[in-house]
Amino acid sequence: MGQGYARHSRVQHRAGDFGLPLLQRAVDAVVLPEDGTPFRVADLGAAAGSNSLDPMRAVVDGIRGRTGEDTPVTVVHTDIPANDFNALLATIMDTPGSYAKLPEVFAQAEARSFYEPLFPAAELHLAWSAIAVHWLSRVPGPIPGHIYCSRATGSARRALKEQSRSDWETFLAHRARELRSGGQLVVLGGAAADDGSSGADGLMDTAEAVLADVVRQGLITPAEYARMTIPTWNRTREEFLAPLREGPLAQALRVEEYDLVVLPDLLLDRLRETGDVKGFAEQVTAFFQAAFQPSLFSVLDPGRAPAEADAVAEAFAVGMRSRVAADPEAVETHWHVVPLRLARV
Amino acid sequence: MGQGYARHSRVQHRAGDFGLPLLQRAVDAVVLPEDGTPFRVADLGAAAGSNSLDPMRAVVDGIRGRTGEDTPVTVVHTDIPANDFNALLATIMDTPGSYAKLPEVFAQAEARSFYEPLFPAAELHLAWSAIAVHWLSRVPGPIPGHIYCSRATGSARRALKEQSRSDWETFLAHRARELRSGGQLVVLGGAAADDGSSGADGLMDTAEAVLADVVRQGLITPAEYARMTIPTWNRTREEFLAPLREGPLAQALRVEEYDLVVLPDLLLDRLRETGDVKGFAEQVTAFFQAAFQPSLFSVLDPGRAPAEADAVAEAFAVGMRSRVAADPEAVETHWHVVPLRLARV
Repeated sequence: MGQGYARHSRVQHRAGDFGLPLLQRAVDAVVLPEDGTPFRVADLGAAAGSNSLDPMRAVVDGIRGRTGEDTPVTVVHTDIPANDFNALLATIMDTPGSYAKLPEVFAQAEARSFYEPLFPAAELHLAWSAIAVHWLSRVPGPIPGHIYCSRATGSARRALKEQSRSDWETFLAHRARELRSGGQLVVLGGAAADDGSSGADGLMDTAEAVLADVVRQGLITPAEYARMTIPTWNRTREEFLAPLREGPLAQALRVEEYDLVVLPDLLLDRLRETGDVKGFAEQVTAFFQAAFQPSLFSVLDPGRAPAEADAVAEAFAVGMRSRVAADPEAVETHWHVVPLRLARV
Repeated sequence: MGQGYARHSRVQHRAGDFGLPLLQRAVDAVVLPEDGTPFRVADLGAAAGSNSLDPMRAVVDGIRGRTGEDTPVTVVHTDIPANDFNALLATIMDTPGSYAKLPEVFAQAEARSFYEPLFPAAELHLAWSAIAVHWLSRVPGPIPGHIYCSRATGSARRALKEQSRSDWETFLAHRARELRSGGQLVVLGGAAADDGSSGADGLMDTAEAVLADVVRQGLITPAEYARMTIPTWNRTREEFLAPLREGPLAQALRVEEYDLVVLPDLLLDRLRETGDVKGFAEQVTAFFQAAFQPSLFSVLDPGRAPAEADAVAEAFAVGMRSRVAADPEAVETHWHVVPLRLARV
């Protein structure tokens, strides 16, 4: 996810704001390195890095406030290999005021999924992951009649939920190994309400309807459409906490705090103030495209010429803007976030 | 430097082969981490990473041969921010047989010049830099009448030599700080013979003549041409060793071995076997473009349209192929390399 993602990730940015108090408490509680050795931080699922700058500066400032010295801090930003690391490193290294410009601060990048080992055992003092763990390691199968997890039913739903459980336990197991004793893990998890609703179902239903239009226009084949799935699962609080209640993960990781936050729909609030339906439709479409289009379009037939894929994208954007403008209230979105702070025992 | 550099960096690759025995001796001599903690390696000036895979595998295998265990190894590949880190990370993570696929091996990237601090103090066990330290941190001034350092005379020559001295001392000072006691530093330095000749002077004279042709064609302005400089300096053995003879760097870094290697001209050897002048001209031009064109063309007027820059590149390639084909012997190139192995006291 490149510049587009950075420009249209205000929702994620706002979600990060909810996490900063937890991060501050993690920095206050974490066991510090000894003898002036470096403090090591992981930023897991960094995307283009634009939402990493404030949290990482808070970490550097917080640790140095506690030690009273220029304690060396090394931050490793990770994401999957398909991420745009040129964009990520440019953001981290070039943004005016970036934490990476502080003395004795070192910033690196790692191209590996957080469902794999990322660091040697007991390497990390602190790990942070903001609005990333709802991306699954794989899609167990298509969702009949829809692109979105919360609309899955029956066996498709069970398969997604099982994939989510397995992925989350894998994530926690790797982090339990990589954190040193007294380390802290802060996760802002893309989440669902206790009843499983995601708060984005209307948005996803609209996108689904637009894709059906694009099929009718003959730009996507029914077979391509059937494969389209956004590979996410929004966990409930209970799904986040279950593996931490008993068993080996509960022995290694202690739940310090958790919550369920429901975010406002900032775009719709602004529309209600301004009445600018066209601008609203443009912004909602741009956000959706930046966040989800790469996943959806990755299943287009491999023989497709770039111009064909561009035509599909253009038709999708036109349709999305049109449907959103026709019924803005239908795409009202209240993303749910579970902020979670864990301590490595 | 992206895919083009990787495809046309056979000269560098061959140079790396000369360094592997030194690297092996560094791995044999380095003080190992204690208590199963990770072994930390820096690969300084990694470019697209294609020449890093064999050396880094040699390091991992060598260390594990000594410890008899899956000692965790973390490798950080560094290069300047303008490097193509997507290409670098793809090479490191995706190449079949890459060292990064071994268990308990972690590969990261850092976007910062090796003339700046790259790591916390005493972080590294081993640092490796292959055919990279001849790139200067800045060009002190244009070289009147030429693009290449070995053709500089008078004050331009003195300024380049002084920049080289300052850069090399800066490089060594940062590495002395970053290496732990008992650590090792292996540098394959792009070098010059004791009389200052680089072994590439004929190649550079041909490129210079082609650029003059392109000016006459009106595609480059004389002012642009005057700014064109390849920002390198090939140090003699004595220039590499001077700061290590006395003073603070000599206190911190002990010279274990050094040499001066003159590389064969593999392309010309093949031409002599095959008589394929066209293929030779093509390969020499492609190598030159991949290695040096970005530096030369970075001083084109900023207002240039991309199509104009493309036309300049095309004219240069056409002219280079033509001149090289007309006189292959004139571009006979014998790169000089100083392999240098230092120990952190």
